[in-house]
Amino acid sequence: MSVLQQQSDRISIVLVRARNPSNIGAVARAMHDFGFRDLRIVNEYPVPFETARSAVDASVILAEAKDFTTLAEAVADCTLVVGTTAVGERALQHPLNALPEAATVIHTELKGDSSRVALLFGSEKTGLSNEELSHCNWLLTIPMEQHEDIRHPSMNLGQAVAVCLYELVRQTGVHVGTGVPQAAAAGEIERLTALLNDVMEKTGYTKRHPANCDESQIRRLVLRMGLAASDVPVWMGILRQILWRVPGAADTEE
Amino acid sequence: MSVLQQQSDRISIVLVRARNPSNIGAVARAMHDFGFRDLRIVNEYPVPFETARSAVDASVILAEAKDFTTLAEAVADCTLVVGTTAVGERALQHPLNALPEAATVIHTELKGDSSRVALLFGSEKTGLSNEELSHCNWLLTIPMEQHEDIRHPSMNLGQAVAVCLYELVRQTGVHVGTGVPQAAAAGEIERLTALLNDVMEKTGYTKRHPANCDESQIRRLVLRMGLAASDVPVWMGILRQILWRVPGAADTEE
Repeated sequence: MSVLQQQSDRISIVLVRARNPSNIGAVARAMHDFGFRDLRIVNEYPVPFETARSAVDASVILAEAKDFTTLAEAVADCTLVVGTTAVGERALQHPLNALPEAATVIHTELKGDSSRVALLFGSEKTGLSNEELSHCNWLLTIPMEQHEDIRHPSMNLGQAVAVCLYELVRQTGVHVGTGVPQAAAAGEIERLTALLNDVMEKTGYTKRHPANCDESQIRRLVLRMGLAASDVPVWMGILRQILWRVPGAADTEE
Repeated sequence: MSVLQQQSDRISIVLVRARNPSNIGAVARAMHDFGFRDLRIVNEYPVPFETARSAVDASVILAEAKDFTTLAEAVADCTLVVGTTAVGERALQHPLNALPEAATVIHTELKGDSSRVALLFGSEKTGLSNEELSHCNWLLTIPMEQHEDIRHPSMNLGQAVAVCLYELVRQTGVHVGTGVPQAAAAGEIERLTALLNDVMEKTGYTKRHPANCDESQIRRLVLRMGLAASDVPVWMGILRQILWRVPGAADTEE
């Protein structure tokens, strides 16, 4: 198996609340065209795959696509979670990379042996919600023409996936620096977020600064730490020790 | 009008015998997304534009699309005619460029003041015929994964156009601004390190895990957070609140 194949196998395409089965089919077809295989679909309700008819030659990818009911589960094993956005008027609380630079950063991440990258695409109508964006390390945007009459530019879902995968394949010749530490997986970030949330509540921080404390904000705060996998147990230990010493915290724990 | 706009206005997308109106709509949408306007449609019979429903926001392009009954007429004013192909088993009698190199050659051609480039896409089923290819100066192919079980690889028409236009825009070097936040200054990192050190001592973490706790280790731990300046006050607030609630901490503070 080539290095290129191994890398594309460690990039997961995650469709969040995709509404239109024919778009899911178009995504599978683009994945097949560019040699990607891992498709993950996040939906509260099952998606009728059999109607994904535009997926010529992509039936294997659809057959092996994994279903999840929450985004957190879908990205739990990923060390880098990248959200795609058309930017528009949304106030961005994340670093933003244009596609060419984003692909370079993704390839750097994939040099880690057990790294896995999730590339998230939101629903056709609304894109990714703020809660969904809070799971992302950073955002990727495809540079598009600005039209004055259109407030929220967006691309067709299948086209956006095709363009991203083309760029990822195009850059496989590019070799960037090594020696990057193994990043923490999203599942570890999630556990750390929950523990920090606990500390903030039990020390009374949440009551004093409620504006900083909804779960998505805490998740983003933790994600912005850009944690290496080896630092997670250290932070978990510090937070557990705090909980142990804060009066009353033990009583209210489950 | 920018140089970029002038260049994209001198690239014509020519659809030859496109069968599916919704594909034509998808092509128009991709053109709109990337700032291209000149769509030419070659068909012996008129195409029902009104059913090109997937063309969100691209109605101007469809309204201004030009119809031709022969390819020769459609490309008559073009100085460079490029055919797209998935290669497959077709015996090529033309020079072939992969997309990245093809885009470079196209941009070179457009440096001529009155140059115009036609980019031809064939029918969804059969691609461009040998007669149609004979109108081309050379051929362009999008590098795709080779699947052993598929003799004639091909991309969805709208996706193929989107990928080509993305590459043409990418090479103009115009990228959207990125939003990397202002990093925390070293003095702020130092104050945060001192406060974290304090929390670790007063919660008893230092006694239990002395190996993690010399000051330079804590500083490195904080530095690895890669903090944005705007996150420093949030973390300071969380740590101060912890100190406030840990019993005995106030007594031992200087």
